[in-house]
Amino acid sequence: MYIIYSPDHALHNPPQEFMEGTLSTYLESPRRAEIILQAVQEAALGEIVAPANFGLNPILAIHHADYVDHLRTIYERWVALGGAPQAALPSIYPQRDLFRQVPVSPWATVGYYSLDLSAPVTEGTYAAARRSAHVALTGARYLLDGEKLAYALCRPPGHHASADLMGGYCYFNNAAIAAQHLVQSGPVAILDIDVHGGNGTQAIFYERSDVLFISIHGAPEWEYPYFCGYADERGAGAGEGYNFNYPLPKGTDDEAYLRVLDEALAHIYRHRPAYLVLSAGFDTFKDDPLGQLALTTPGYEAIGQRIAALGVPTLVVQEGGYAVDALGQNAVSLLRGLQQP
Amino acid sequence: MYIIYSPDHALHNPPQEFMEGTLSTYLESPRRAEIILQAVQEAALGEIVAPANFGLNPILAIHHADYVDHLRTIYERWVALGGAPQAALPSIYPQRDLFRQVPVSPWATVGYYSLDLSAPVTEGTYAAARRSAHVALTGARYLLDGEKLAYALCRPPGHHASADLMGGYCYFNNAAIAAQHLVQSGPVAILDIDVHGGNGTQAIFYERSDVLFISIHGAPEWEYPYFCGYADERGAGAGEGYNFNYPLPKGTDDEAYLRVLDEALAHIYRHRPAYLVLSAGFDTFKDDPLGQLALTTPGYEAIGQRIAALGVPTLVVQEGGYAVDALGQNAVSLLRGLQQP
Repeated sequence: MYIIYSPDHALHNPPQEFMEGTLSTYLESPRRAEIILQAVQEAALGEIVAPANFGLNPILAIHHADYVDHLRTIYERWVALGGAPQAALPSIYPQRDLFRQVPVSPWATVGYYSLDLSAPVTEGTYAAARRSAHVALTGARYLLDGEKLAYALCRPPGHHASADLMGGYCYFNNAAIAAQHLVQSGPVAILDIDVHGGNGTQAIFYERSDVLFISIHGAPEWEYPYFCGYADERGAGAGEGYNFNYPLPKGTDDEAYLRVLDEALAHIYRHRPAYLVLSAGFDTFKDDPLGQLALTTPGYEAIGQRIAALGVPTLVVQEGGYAVDALGQNAVSLLRGLQQP
Repeated sequence: MYIIYSPDHALHNPPQEFMEGTLSTYLESPRRAEIILQAVQEAALGEIVAPANFGLNPILAIHHADYVDHLRTIYERWVALGGAPQAALPSIYPQRDLFRQVPVSPWATVGYYSLDLSAPVTEGTYAAARRSAHVALTGARYLLDGEKLAYALCRPPGHHASADLMGGYCYFNNAAIAAQHLVQSGPVAILDIDVHGGNGTQAIFYERSDVLFISIHGAPEWEYPYFCGYADERGAGAGEGYNFNYPLPKGTDDEAYLRVLDEALAHIYRHRPAYLVLSAGFDTFKDDPLGQLALTTPGYEAIGQRIAALGVPTLVVQEGGYAVDALGQNAVSLLRGLQQP
């Protein structure tokens, strides 16, 4: 198995996010990727490789040009205007009857292109996000070259980002960008097992039938991102019937989770995908500070085994997971399961 | 002239707002109302009276019931969930393709009902906002009783709040609530001279011809609320031609301002209103920390004189103004102008 990693993720290291009414330490830290890297190295799961450079086109196949341009330029414009030098963070949003025009001022564009206050843009954010997309694309290329399994150790993660919205620690939707790259060679399924519903990926493929999207996550009644991820969101237009959400109750354990996973895998099997993209978050873990499910480290191996049983070439794309001390072992556990015949 | 004031405004005293990427001291402080009260008392401009109790119905004539209920209950639910006890402040918004359902979790409803991060809800916010609406309504009643001029010393202010959105220090739209009360007895014009476009009032009356809305403000290209307040927003449906925005360049001085005011007053004159509601912000003042215009204290007297020349019974509703030391004298200056024959 190839494990794709770039140290450039550390260019993105915002000190804080705004959550629950206060500024708090940014949980999506560089240490997350480093601890996973160390664990997969120690477990000798595969060769660590650097990402290739795919340029901007595969990113522009998913994200709007104005959004990409915003992410590339906003930090400099923000600082020039007198914004906090740590990072650009929104304080006004184009809500309902407030919104009449796309704004001109950077004070407002940061809100126009964000869905929450967990996507600060620092000086290095664009470079890191772009590299993270290339990490996923490199993994996709390994599948196209005939590999059965690759692990894109992406950071920042991507599944909350939609065509022109950042949020939830996500800027470019790495899984969607990789899926779009793969779908040129056959149908793709994306399975999102992060504890937070994959709103960005869902939105991107909501009206398409060539990319099946399935998300298993904490129910939006109590879990981020709250505004979507309900079971009745089934896709629209040509995509009707190609979107599935499995909202779970608080405290869901390995056994209950695996039952739901089996249902999801049955949908994927019926789609007959040429490739599977697995948006892998480990915030379903019992000790995760941002999740309220109860999965265990061995649970991830069981998840990996069942997914591997599909027999579909699989690209694992790293998403969330904030119980940092357990993150390495959880990733190793999932990957070991996926490697089993 | 009656000056309507309630000390209950001080029940609303959030410590902080989130702006320009950081938490900062809440500029819309109780001291604002106190310093104005003291100045109008010292200037012996009229009798200070307490607001009457109008109950909830006149508020519900403008704001959605679910919004009023949210404002009434959110602080308690927020604290019960573990939110920062200082105040409820949003961190996720129902942006474009994220939004599929009105959320259940208080973490998300705070964003659903807010347009920015300048409307924290504290324990006393609902009571203060309700009283502030009654301050405006009491002023409206004086006009209905035959008074030619009344000053509603409202706090919190109101003009950024729309039917179901708080923001910009505003919760209930006092001017709109008063206008709705007055319009039952004849056509109403609302003139908004706060430096920030009156997006809430505009939205509330955008499709109505019985309430003319005119706002003179810093241009949205650089001034809050950024997303609207352009000159081409002229109303819609039955309200087409009953909405006017006058965006001003940075640094506009008294002389240039008065020229624009004359244009606005000509529209009002043609509307033949039975009543005028003046949303009076003093953040057009040259030293205001939230504005970039250059009006002077004598300028407000000239503004008042020109408005008085319309000969229309006028309710002054206090909106913004954050150069606190000058606030009292600026209010006195405007009111003196309005009192001149």
